[in-house]
Amino acid sequence: MMNGDEYIRSLQAMKTIVYINGQKVSDYYSHPVMKPAVNTLKATYDLASDPELDSDIHALIVTESDLTGGRVNRFLKILQSREDLLARMKLQRAMMRYTGGCFGGRCVAGAVINSLWSVTYDMEKAGCSAPYHQRFRNYMKAVQEQDLAVSGNITDAKGDRSLPPHRQSDPDLYVRVVERRKDGIVVNGAKLQQSGAPVAHERLVVPTSALGPDEEPYAVAFAVPGDAEGVVHVNDSSCINAKFEAMDHEDIGNATFGMHQSAHILFDHVFVPWDRVFLCGEWKPCRDLVHRFSDFQRLASSSCRCGYIDLCIGAASAMADYNGVSSKSHIQEKLIDMSVDAETIYGLVAGASAHSTDTASGVPLPDTMIINAAKIYMNDAILRTAQKLADIGGGILVTRPSNRDLRIPKVGDLLRKYHKGRDGIDVEDRLKMARLCESLSGLASMTPILSVIAAGPPATQRLNFRLMTDLKRDRRAAERLAGIAP
Amino acid sequence: MMNGDEYIRSLQAMKTIVYINGQKVSDYYSHPVMKPAVNTLKATYDLASDPELDSDIHALIVTESDLTGGRVNRFLKILQSREDLLARMKLQRAMMRYTGGCFGGRCVAGAVINSLWSVTYDMEKAGCSAPYHQRFRNYMKAVQEQDLAVSGNITDAKGDRSLPPHRQSDPDLYVRVVERRKDGIVVNGAKLQQSGAPVAHERLVVPTSALGPDEEPYAVAFAVPGDAEGVVHVNDSSCINAKFEAMDHEDIGNATFGMHQSAHILFDHVFVPWDRVFLCGEWKPCRDLVHRFSDFQRLASSSCRCGYIDLCIGAASAMADYNGVSSKSHIQEKLIDMSVDAETIYGLVAGASAHSTDTASGVPLPDTMIINAAKIYMNDAILRTAQKLADIGGGILVTRPSNRDLRIPKVGDLLRKYHKGRDGIDVEDRLKMARLCESLSGLASMTPILSVIAAGPPATQRLNFRLMTDLKRDRRAAERLAGIAP
Amino acid sequence: MMNGDEYIRSLQAMKTIVYINGQKVSDYYSHPVMKPAVNTLKATYDLASDPELDSDIHALIVTESDLTGGRVNRFLKILQSREDLLARMKLQRAMMRYTGGCFGGRCVAGAVINSLWSVTYDMEKAGCSAPYHQRFRNYMKAVQEQDLAVSGNITDAKGDRSLPPHRQSDPDLYVRVVERRKDGIVVNGAKLQQSGAPVAHERLVVPTSALGPDEEPYAVAFAVPGDAEGVVHVNDSSCINAKFEAMDHEDIGNATFGMHQSAHILFDHVFVPWDRVFLCGEWKPCRDLVHRFSDFQRLASSSCRCGYIDLCIGAASAMADYNGVSSKSHIQEKLIDMSVDAETIYGLVAGASAHSTDTASGVPLPDTMIINAAKIYMNDAILRTAQKLADIGGGILVTRPSNRDLRIPKVGDLLRKYHKGRDGIDVEDRLKMARLCESLSGLASMTPILSVIAAGPPATQRLNFRLMTDLKRDRRAAERLAGIAP
Amino acid sequence: MMNGDEYIRSLQAMKTIVYINGQKVSDYYSHPVMKPAVNTLKATYDLASDPELDSDIHALIVTESDLTGGRVNRFLKILQSREDLLARMKLQRAMMRYTGGCFGGRCVAGAVINSLWSVTYDMEKAGCSAPYHQRFRNYMKAVQEQDLAVSGNITDAKGDRSLPPHRQSDPDLYVRVVERRKDGIVVNGAKLQQSGAPVAHERLVVPTSALGPDEEPYAVAFAVPGDAEGVVHVNDSSCINAKFEAMDHEDIGNATFGMHQSAHILFDHVFVPWDRVFLCGEWKPCRDLVHRFSDFQRLASSSCRCGYIDLCIGAASAMADYNGVSSKSHIQEKLIDMSVDAETIYGLVAGASAHSTDTASGVPLPDTMIINAAKIYMNDAILRTAQKLADIGGGILVTRPSNRDLRIPKVGDLLRKYHKGRDGIDVEDRLKMARLCESLSGLASMTPILSVIAAGPPATQRLNFRLMTDLKRDRRAAERLAGIAP
Repeated sequence: MMNGDEYIRSLQAMKTIVYINGQKVSDYYSHPVMKPAVNTLKATYDLASDPELDSDIHALIVTESDLTGGRVNRFLKILQSREDLLARMKLQRAMMRYTGGCFGGRCVAGAVINSLWSVTYDMEKAGCSAPYHQRFRNYMKAVQEQDLAVSGNITDAKGDRSLPPHRQSDPDLYVRVVERRKDGIVVNGAKLQQSGAPVAHERLVVPTSALGPDEEPYAVAFAVPGDAEGVVHVNDSSCINAKFEAMDHEDIGNATFGMHQSAHILFDHVFVPWDRVFLCGEWKPCRDLVHRFSDFQRLASSSCRCGYIDLCIGAASAMADYNGVSSKSHIQEKLIDMSVDAETIYGLVAGASAHSTDTASGVPLPDTMIINAAKIYMNDAILRTAQKLADIGGGILVTRPSNRDLRIPKVGDLLRKYHKGRDGIDVEDRLKMARLCESLSGLASMTPILSVIAAGPPATQRLNFRLMTDLKRDRRAAERLAGIAP
Repeated sequence: MMNGDEYIRSLQAMKTIVYINGQKVSDYYSHPVMKPAVNTLKATYDLASDPELDSDIHALIVTESDLTGGRVNRFLKILQSREDLLARMKLQRAMMRYTGGCFGGRCVAGAVINSLWSVTYDMEKAGCSAPYHQRFRNYMKAVQEQDLAVSGNITDAKGDRSLPPHRQSDPDLYVRVVERRKDGIVVNGAKLQQSGAPVAHERLVVPTSALGPDEEPYAVAFAVPGDAEGVVHVNDSSCINAKFEAMDHEDIGNATFGMHQSAHILFDHVFVPWDRVFLCGEWKPCRDLVHRFSDFQRLASSSCRCGYIDLCIGAASAMADYNGVSSKSHIQEKLIDMSVDAETIYGLVAGASAHSTDTASGVPLPDTMIINAAKIYMNDAILRTAQKLADIGGGILVTRPSNRDLRIPKVGDLLRKYHKGRDGIDVEDRLKMARLCESLSGLASMTPILSVIAAGPPATQRLNFRLMTDLKRDRRAAERLAGIAP
Repeated sequence: MMNGDEYIRSLQAMKTIVYINGQKVSDYYSHPVMKPAVNTLKATYDLASDPELDSDIHALIVTESDLTGGRVNRFLKILQSREDLLARMKLQRAMMRYTGGCFGGRCVAGAVINSLWSVTYDMEKAGCSAPYHQRFRNYMKAVQEQDLAVSGNITDAKGDRSLPPHRQSDPDLYVRVVERRKDGIVVNGAKLQQSGAPVAHERLVVPTSALGPDEEPYAVAFAVPGDAEGVVHVNDSSCINAKFEAMDHEDIGNATFGMHQSAHILFDHVFVPWDRVFLCGEWKPCRDLVHRFSDFQRLASSSCRCGYIDLCIGAASAMADYNGVSSKSHIQEKLIDMSVDAETIYGLVAGASAHSTDTASGVPLPDTMIINAAKIYMNDAILRTAQKLADIGGGILVTRPSNRDLRIPKVGDLLRKYHKGRDGIDVEDRLKMARLCESLSGLASMTPILSVIAAGPPATQRLNFRLMTDLKRDRRAAERLAGIAP
Repeated sequence: MMNGDEYIRSLQAMKTIVYINGQKVSDYYSHPVMKPAVNTLKATYDLASDPELDSDIHALIVTESDLTGGRVNRFLKILQSREDLLARMKLQRAMMRYTGGCFGGRCVAGAVINSLWSVTYDMEKAGCSAPYHQRFRNYMKAVQEQDLAVSGNITDAKGDRSLPPHRQSDPDLYVRVVERRKDGIVVNGAKLQQSGAPVAHERLVVPTSALGPDEEPYAVAFAVPGDAEGVVHVNDSSCINAKFEAMDHEDIGNATFGMHQSAHILFDHVFVPWDRVFLCGEWKPCRDLVHRFSDFQRLASSSCRCGYIDLCIGAASAMADYNGVSSKSHIQEKLIDMSVDAETIYGLVAGASAHSTDTASGVPLPDTMIINAAKIYMNDAILRTAQKLADIGGGILVTRPSNRDLRIPKVGDLLRKYHKGRDGIDVEDRLKMARLCESLSGLASMTPILSVIAAGPPATQRLNFRLMTDLKRDRRAAERLAGIAP
C-alpha cells in the first residue's frame, strides 16, 4: 500500500491535463485550489500507512481483500457483507470528522465499483457472452495491487433535462460510443462536476441514467487512466476558489482540507482497449446499475455528513464557550438539535445497511427506501446545522478582520482588543475558530448568514414572547372554561 | 438632493480612514471589495434623482420632509404615520429586488433616527434639562438639507456575552464617554461589523443594550462625520471579499451590487462637540431606545428579505426554464413555497406596521410581537429559499467553468457544448444565471449546497417512495378495518 | 337588539326541521349535541346586550349600522373600512378566547354577506338589469333590524371532485335552480357540513365555485328562513357527539361551548320568492364572489384560531404549574412557540387587513396572498399547538378517571390521592383542567396523543443527546482543523 | 400455546376487579369500552395459533424459547440476538397494520421482561446474594409454558413532577414496599394509565425512575396476577370511550380494534410472595433498568407507529380515489411524505437494532441515541400523518351522517345521494372509510381537524400563489442583475 508521499509522486509521474481558471497547469497538484483535494486524498494514504496518525481510522481504513488476499484500502474493497457496508460508513463519518473536507476522489469509487461488480456478475450468471465481469475482476485486482485512487464518474452533461439521451439535439450530451474497433472503443462526451477527479489515478465511467433500446451507444462502462489521450479536465470555478487564491493561509478556515474541488472531464474521441470496457451496448442492466449506484452513493454521502455535523457541534460548542454563553439553555437546545440530526442520519445509514439485500455476487445492497429517507432527511439537516452554527457563532463568522489587518501597527492591537471573548480565551483562537465556522457553515455570502444574525439572533426575538405574552389573561380564560374558581 | 455622481464626489472630498485587508486605502470607494456597497448607495441617490431609472422606486424614495418642508430621501425621513412606516417597507423590498445587495449605509439609519427622535422627544416632554431633542432636530435638518447618507451604529464589541458592560474586564468593550469637556465629550470603543459604514457620510452612534445605574458612561448617543479624528474603519474580511478581488467581473454573480460589506469602526479618543451629543449619562431611556431600534430594524430587515426572495424566485424560474423543467410539479411546488414565504414575511411587516403604536413624537412604533414573529419566520425562510434555489439551480451553481476557461481555444467550445440547457437558450445566459444563483444562495462553500445536490436532488429520492410504497397492501389493510369488501 | 333569552325564544318560534342521529327532534335547541352551538350563539347575543359580561367584547361586538342608522351586532355589519375589517378580526379572536367553541352560525355570514354585497354592487354599477343589490340591501336591513343570526352556506356536495358541476352524473350535486316561476325560483341540492346552521335563523346560500357558461342554473344566491318548506337539516355525526350524549357534564371539557356542530342542509324543491333571490344565472360574477368569500373566510378562521391558541397557552401554563414544572426551560420554550404562532397568525390577519383593497361598494377586500399565507401557516400551527398542549398536559388528558369513578367509595379517594399534582393544587382542579386540555387538543383518540406522550415525552429523549454527545471529541476535531493548540 | 377462545376463557376464570365509569364490572371483557383491547389481545393468540389468518404475522409471532425449548409467542421471548430484536419490531409493525389498535397488554411486557432479565443477570454476575435472576427465570418459564399475557407496569403517580419519590408529601405517590415479611413483601402505590392492563393475566411491576440511596423502598420489582388481593383497576375515561358506548357499531371506525384502553392500577397493601419479588431495596441497578426499559419501549412504540402510518397511507389513498382526485400532484406528494415518514422511522428502528450492544445475559440493547432520535422523529411524524390524512379525507371525516340517519325514510336516500364520490364507488364504502379515517386521525374534536379543512384545504390556498406571484417581474429582476438581455 502506498503512503502519502508515494501518492504525490505517483501524481507527478502522470501527464494528466488539467485547466484551472483558463490556464493549463502541469503541476496542478500544487495549485492552491487543488491542494485541499490532494491533501485529503493524501490523508487517506497516510492514515492507511501510519497507525500513529489516528488509530481508530487506521483500523477502519485498512482491511483484507478477497481479490488479492492482501491488505487493501477499504475504499477499494469489494463489499461482501453487511459488516463491510457499515464499516465503510463508519470510515466515511470518521474521515469527514478528521478532514472536514471532501474525499470524492475516493468515496464515489465505492458506489461505482460495487454496482458494476454486482451487475456484471448478474450478467455473467445470466449467460452474457462478453467477459465483462472477468475483465472488471482483473481490473480491480490490478487497482488494489497498485493501491490506486479511482474516481467514479457518472454525471453527464444532460442538456435539456426533460429529454432522454437519444433525443438531445447534440448526441454527445451523454457519454457514448462513437466507434467500435477491433482493439477497443472510442468514446465522446463529458462527465461534469466530478469531485476530486484530477487527483485520482483512474477514471471509472458509467452511465448516469436508465436507458432504452434506442440508446445502446450510451450503455457504456469503462476505465481509463487520468492521463489517457483525449481526456481533459477543467477545474470547476466556485467563488470559494478565489478564497484559496487570494487570501492568506491563516485566513482560510480549514486551509489544509477545506475546499470541495470538482472538475469537468471532457472525453474527446478517447480510445479504450477492450480489457477496460465493462459494458458496451447492453442497455437493460443500466437500470440496475444506476439504481444501485444511487443507493450506494446516498449511503456514502449521508454517512460523511454525520462527520460534518460532528465537526459543527464541536465548532459551535467552542464558539459558545469563547463567547461565555455555553450554559444558556437556547445554546444547549441547539447543540442537542444538531446531535439529534447527526444520529438520525447515522441511524438511517445503519438501518439501511442492516436491511440490505444480498446479491448473487455477495455485494449487499442497502435498503432503497431507508437510504433515500436518509438523504431526504440529511438534505434539510445540513442546512439547519449550518444555520445553527452561524446563529451560535455570530456575525464574526463573516466579519472578522483579516490576518493582515491584525498586523497593522496599533490598529491590529485595537482589533484584538475588540474581538476578545470571555476572559481566559486567547483572542486569536476565537478568530481562528470563526474562520473554521465560516468554512463549515458554507454560508459565505450575504443574505443567509446575515438574516440569521442581523437585528439580533432569533433567541432575542423569542425573549419578547416570554416577556409579552399575557399568560395571566390566557390562563384565566382556560380556568373559566374548565370551571375552576378564580 | 444629490445625484449619484455628486455622492461619489462627496466621498472623495472626505478624508475617511479605511483599512482593507491590511492596507490603508485612500480611494477605498474604488476598491473592488468596497465598490458594490458604493454602487448600492449610489443607486439610492440615482433612483431619487432620476425618475427614468425606475419610476416605482422613484415614487417611493422621494418624499416630503416635515423638517425642511422640501423633498427628502425617504431613508432620512422622520416617520409620522403608519403610511410612512409601510411606505418605507415597500421601498426596502423594491430596493432589494433592484440591487440584490445591501444598502446598510442607508437602512439602519432609519431605525436609529426614529428611535432616537422619539426617545429624546419623550425625555424633553418629561422635563429633561439637556436639549437633546432640539440638538437632534437641528442635526437631522442639516442632514436632510445636505442629503447625507447616515450609518446608524449600534453593535458593540461585547467581550464576554454573559456580562454587562460595566463588568467586562476591559471597560472599552462597549462605547463609552472617557472624558466630559466644556466643549464636548471624548469617546472610546468600537462598533463592530457596521454594514456599509465607510460609504456613508455620517456615523450616528447609540448604545447596544439596556443599561443600569452603574453604566452612565455607556449611555451615550452622538454623531460624527466619517472622517472625524480618531475614527478608523477596518473593512471586514469575509471569504467573499476574495471573489471580488480575484475573479473576473463576469465571474461574479451580481458584480455591481452583490456583496455585503461591513466595517469595524474604532473610536480612539474621539472628540464630539456638544451639539452632536444626543444622550450622555441618562441610562434609563436606553431601554426604550434599544427596544425601539430593535423593532424598527427587524421590520426593515424583514422587508428587504422579501425583495431577496422575489429575486430568488425569478432566478429559480429562469434556471428551471433554461434546464427544460419549468413544468415539473416539484419545481412548481418549490416556487410556490418561496412565494408563500415572501408574502408571509411581507404580511407580517404590513401587520406590524398596521398595528403600530403612536408615540408622543408622532413616530409610530411597529407592533413588537408581530415584528419579532416576522424576524423569527424570516430567519428560517431565507435558508429554505437558498436551499430551494440551489436545488432548482443544480450543481452548476458552484461548478460552472470560469469565463477564462470559456476562452481557452477548443476547450472553451467543448465547455459551452456541454453546458447547454434546452434548445433555444443561450448557453452563456445559463452560465450567467448560475453565477447569480450562486451569489444569491450565499451557499458558496462545500457542504450545504452539495448536500442538496450531490447523489441527486431530493425530488429523485422522493420518486423512490412513489414507486416503492406498497399502496395496495396498505389500502387493503385499511379497507379490511373499515369493513369494505375486497 | 335581542338578548340571549329572546334568541332562544326566537328559535322556539320557528319550525325548523332537524334530524339528530336518526331522530327528528323538535326541541333540537335543547339536545345535548346541539346545546353547545346554541350556547355559543346565545353568548353573541348576551355579550352584545349586557356590557357587564365582558366589557372588551361588548365594545367590539356592538357597532353602528350604515343601513339602519342604529346599533347592530358586528357580525351583521357591512364592512366599510379597514378599521371595520380589523375590528371584526379582534372580535373573532376575543370571542374564541371567551367560548373556546365555534360560532359558525355567525362568522361565516360575514364572509358571505360582504362578498355578495360587493359583487351585487359591482353588477349594479355595470348595468345589470336585475335589482339584486337593492333586494340584498332590503334583506340586510330587515335582518339587522330584527337582529337575526345568519348562516352563510357555501359547501356543495361536489360528488367527483375532479369534475365541474355540470359534468357530475347527478345534476343536484351542486345547488341549482330547477324551476323559474313568476313569483320566484325552485332550488334543489345540498349544502353539507354547515357550521352552526340549525341554530341560526336564516340560510344565505351562494355558489361554492367559479362557474362556466354551461352552468347558469348553478349561479344562484338566495336566502330562506331555516324553517322554509323543503329545507331539512341533518346534524353531523362526529364521534365527539357521543361524548356529549354519554358522559356526565363534569366529564366534558368545556361542556358549555366545546363542541363544533354542523349540519347537512338538504334543499328539496325549495321555493324562493324573487325578493330573496340575489343571483340567478349570472355565472360570470361567481368567480369574484367565491374568491372574495374565500379570502374573508380565511381571514375569519385565522383570527379565531389566535383565540384558540391563547386558550391553549393558558391551559398549558396551568397544567405545567399544577404539575410543578412551570420553570423548566423546555416548558418555557413550548409556551414561547405557541405564542409566536398566535402572533404570527394575528400579524398576518392584521397585514391582510391593512393591505386590503377598496371595492366600489366600500367593502374592503383583504390582501389575497397575505391571507392565504395566514391560512397555510395556521394550518400547521394549530396541529403544533395541539401537540404541545398534549405534551405539556401529559397522559392524564386522555386517561383521567371519570367523575363517576371519583364517587366510588374508597376507590374514589385513592384516585384522588394518586392524581395529585404539586402541593397546594386542588386535585379536582387538575382533573378539570385535564378535561379542558383534552377538549382543546382535539386529540381524542389513540395514536397521535399517545405517540407524543407514551415512552416518555420528547424532552426526556432529548436529554439523552445532551448526556451522550461526545462534545469533547467533536470540539477537539474542530480545534485541530482551526489550528488551535490542544 | 393458547388460541383466542382459550384466552377469553382464561380471563373469565380470573376474579380481576375492574371499574368502568363508576361501576364494578365483573364481565369487563365484554364491556364495549374494553372489548377492543380484548379483541386485540385475542388476535395475538389467534394469529399465533392459526397460520391461515395471516401467514406473514404467524411466521413472525411464533418462535422458539430458550427457556422451555418449545414454541412461544414472540412477545414473551427473551431476546438473544439482533435478529430477535428486529423480528420483534417487524412483528409490531405488521400487528399494528393488522389491527390499527393497541396491543399494550403485550408489547410493554417485552421492554420490562428484557430489561429486568438483563439487569438481574448483571446483578447475579456481580455477586448479588438474592436469587433475583433465578426467580425471574422460573417466573418467565412458567409464563411461557402457560402462554400468559403480561402487562408491564411502570408509570407511577408522580405527584409533584419536580420532586423525587422520597420528597413527595405522600410517600405512596411512587410504588413502594410498606412491609417486609418472612414470606414476602407488602406494597402500596399506583401504576397509572397502563395500556391494556386488565386484559392481560399478569402484572409485572418495575420502578419508573432512577433512584437514590434514600429511596430503597421504591426499588422494587415484582409480579402478581391481575386478580391478586388488593389490586384494583379503574379504567381510563377518554372521551372516545363514549363513542364505543353511545354509537352504533357501524358508526365506529375500526369498531373491532380501534380504541386504546388503559387502566389505573391501584395497589392497596398487596402481598407479594418472595418467589415473585425480583428487586427489593437495590436502588443502584434501577438506573440501568429504567434506561433499558425506556430504550426498548421507544423502539417498540416507534415500530408500531410505522404500521399505523401504513394504514393511514392506505386509508388516504382510498379516500382520494373515492373522491376522484388520486392523480392530483398534491395528493401524490402527501402520500410520498407519509411514506417517507414511515420508512424513516422504520429505518431508525432497524439502525438502532443493528447498532445494539450485547449484554452479558445475551439480551441486545438497542442503540440509545438512534432509538431516541427515532422517537423524536416519530412524535412529529404521527401528527403530520394525521393532518395529511384529514387533509386528504376532508370534512366528511367528522361530519358524515350516522348510520341511523341513513335509515330515515327519504332523508336517508338524500344523504346517500349527496355523499356520493366519483362514479363507480359505493357511497357506503366512502362513508365507512370516512369513519376509519376519523378513527385513525385521532382528530376527533373541533379545532385541529377543522383548521385543516375549513375555508378550503391548504392546496387551494397554495394555488393562489401559483396564480398571483409576479414571476415575470421577479425573473426580469434576476436577469437584469445577471446581465442577461431582455
